[in-house]
Amino acid sequence: MTAGNVVRIGVLGCGNVGAAFVTLVTRQADEIEQRTGLRLEVRRVAVRNLSRQRDVELGDGTLTRDTHAIVVDPDIDLVVEVIGGIEPARELIATALKSGKPVVTANKELLANVGVELYEIADQHGVDLLFEASVGGGIPLIRPLRESLRGEPVHRMIGIINGTTNYILTKMTESGVQYSEALAEAQQLGYAERDPTADVEGFDAGAKAAILATMAFGSKVVAGDVYHEGISKITAADIAVARRLGYVVKLLAIIERADANGDIGVRVHPAMVPVHHPLASVRESYNALFVEGGAVGSLMFYGRGAGGMPSASAVLGDVIDAALNLSKGTHATIGDFARSPIRPIDETSAEYLITLDVDDQPGVLHAVTGVFADHEVSIRAAEQEGLAEEARLVFITHEANEASVQATLRELRDLEHVRRVGGLLRVIGS
Amino acid sequence: MTAGNVVRIGVLGCGNVGAAFVTLVTRQADEIEQRTGLRLEVRRVAVRNLSRQRDVELGDGTLTRDTHAIVVDPDIDLVVEVIGGIEPARELIATALKSGKPVVTANKELLANVGVELYEIADQHGVDLLFEASVGGGIPLIRPLRESLRGEPVHRMIGIINGTTNYILTKMTESGVQYSEALAEAQQLGYAERDPTADVEGFDAGAKAAILATMAFGSKVVAGDVYHEGISKITAADIAVARRLGYVVKLLAIIERADANGDIGVRVHPAMVPVHHPLASVRESYNALFVEGGAVGSLMFYGRGAGGMPSASAVLGDVIDAALNLSKGTHATIGDFARSPIRPIDETSAEYLITLDVDDQPGVLHAVTGVFADHEVSIRAAEQEGLAEEARLVFITHEANEASVQATLRELRDLEHVRRVGGLLRVIGS
Repeated sequence: MTAGNVVRIGVLGCGNVGAAFVTLVTRQADEIEQRTGLRLEVRRVAVRNLSRQRDVELGDGTLTRDTHAIVVDPDIDLVVEVIGGIEPARELIATALKSGKPVVTANKELLANVGVELYEIADQHGVDLLFEASVGGGIPLIRPLRESLRGEPVHRMIGIINGTTNYILTKMTESGVQYSEALAEAQQLGYAERDPTADVEGFDAGAKAAILATMAFGSKVVAGDVYHEGISKITAADIAVARRLGYVVKLLAIIERADANGDIGVRVHPAMVPVHHPLASVRESYNALFVEGGAVGSLMFYGRGAGGMPSASAVLGDVIDAALNLSKGTHATIGDFARSPIRPIDETSAEYLITLDVDDQPGVLHAVTGVFADHEVSIRAAEQEGLAEEARLVFITHEANEASVQATLRELRDLEHVRRVGGLLRVIGS
Repeated sequence: MTAGNVVRIGVLGCGNVGAAFVTLVTRQADEIEQRTGLRLEVRRVAVRNLSRQRDVELGDGTLTRDTHAIVVDPDIDLVVEVIGGIEPARELIATALKSGKPVVTANKELLANVGVELYEIADQHGVDLLFEASVGGGIPLIRPLRESLRGEPVHRMIGIINGTTNYILTKMTESGVQYSEALAEAQQLGYAERDPTADVEGFDAGAKAAILATMAFGSKVVAGDVYHEGISKITAADIAVARRLGYVVKLLAIIERADANGDIGVRVHPAMVPVHHPLASVRESYNALFVEGGAVGSLMFYGRGAGGMPSASAVLGDVIDAALNLSKGTHATIGDFARSPIRPIDETSAEYLITLDVDDQPGVLHAVTGVFADHEVSIRAAEQEGLAEEARLVFITHEANEASVQATLRELRDLEHVRRVGGLLRVIGS
């Protein structure tokens, strides 16, 4: 930092979040200086294409294509990484940290895969690595988990942490449209990518769940540890059945202490949430994290989970924090990370909703319920609806083991007169 | 701190929160040590009555009646104040801070009145004064406002920050009972005090609003600056009318930048919230703070706003933070506080719901609407309901100035054939 308390910031990447960050710093610099005594200035911005038209005001010579030059520049105090992806972001962040520069990043893919390695480099070099924007966009989640709830025995966190899928499910629920129509609308509005796989198949939420698990439980969890199912097989009929029974269908990330030994459960899948649960009213592209703690009870954090400005707000909060720490010669300790066993999905249990389309013939219900009984999956509620020559059977089970339910489904699929085994939905939060 | 990284804690007060804190430290000490390297130990606890039976495990000689001895004890590293009230808490906290001991407090009354004086003492002596539990019990609010949102242009915060009144209003809404009956139930359940004035007349929410305004806007706001109206005049009929029109009645704290000059609006009053607003689904004794920011959009923080364990969880989060800072020889900077003008309630504006019981006579509606027109209060919607010889008139205004609405009400009360001017409800969040 310079004598005048100017904090010279280098920004890697000038996409959606990067450009919004530069705008926000310019807009807020006076007020931040008044409240903290620090003057934030964006001095270098690395971009891939120098000639592209940008909607940000930057001083002459601010733009560069040389990302490496920024992270080793002695006239840069602090680095913001908003390139995304694992390489070269990892290399750049590691170099910046080793040069004593605090780093603020929004890069969930990076953190969900090699985060712990980078946290350790940050601690070794006594500088901050902050990443509020990596999960839940502008919603303060990481800081409350890392700091406010550090003493709290957190049992479970249930999150709606992907805005694209929540938008699609909201449309399907409120307008009764099928998945493909809701997806097309989300794509038109820019909520979904042209290739929506990362969002709709749960990869994005899985990466964020790994970061949350690592922060909440102090245990190394990587994206590859997270079981995930997406929403592309959910039908309007599944949602209508759930709704009639008093539930809303959401794509949930579930992060929990699976037992007293410290085993962790972390998974992403569609689920039925009771309509009175606070997560049920999280609509459209909003995100929320519901936390169940032994002392604090239930908490929920809610807001915009994506978007340039919301994410830039989270980045700026981190930048101010890192700059204040830098000015005091200190940094936030992330702590040590153990490696806890991850409980496989097969060993988890839940209540399940199972929908079957069957021929409307004598003896079918008897045969079907026999399969449940053979696998010791106990039925809590059942209903049958006639559809011409078919009947639709809907079952809700008592709490049952995942492996047993999967075995039940496999056997049901092979059963005579069973035409279709519909979307499996787990009941969460009742 | 001792060589073994033991943090020796002195606790002032062993009521609901104090006892829960001691229990929680004992339960969590191992895990906290594993994650932070610090061993928390409660060494002294000051109580008024040494012989009272307590539900906490304490070492011999831990209890004392001498509060002053704790805050000057060289063998105490950190002080937790959960006595409440202004004196002697102020004197004790100031002494502890001046002795270089960080202080964690849950004392809203103290902070809402003399907080800034204490923040300055803390900054001067380079130690932490943390107070997450003072507003919203276990919900992380103060830390996100102080840190995560430090760069965010916050326009407005709307909070349900008193659990007692939210419980009463929830009962009135969902069971249709009158205020007195709902209050009696809240008292029976321990949600309301025998003398409920501080809660139901808005004093408690007003003190919390002052703390939130100070943190969000970096401006000295004290409890006496906060206009407050309570819920004791709300009737089941008011709630039913609001509900029919698509609103839920909540006691809200509204904290906003009133204009571009930095004037602040801060007030507590009952209001009608649209049924789809996230605050509308905050039921029973839960609290929530809804934040509207220029960059981040809408955020909401939700959870248990009171209770021993939730508040103890917040105190413990602060204690760990202060202990880590102490071990690193640093502290959180609270920042400087200016004094911004507080906009008087008369100069605010909102949409209003006004209910009048009038004689069912020709010309009454004409006379009533004339009074609105004289004061330039424009009516957005009106309805009339017959009640034997009376009629009930319900008006919703367009956005109108408070002083004009109050002048309208005064004149309506004196109008012939107007029997009763019912609860005034402002519409917030539409």
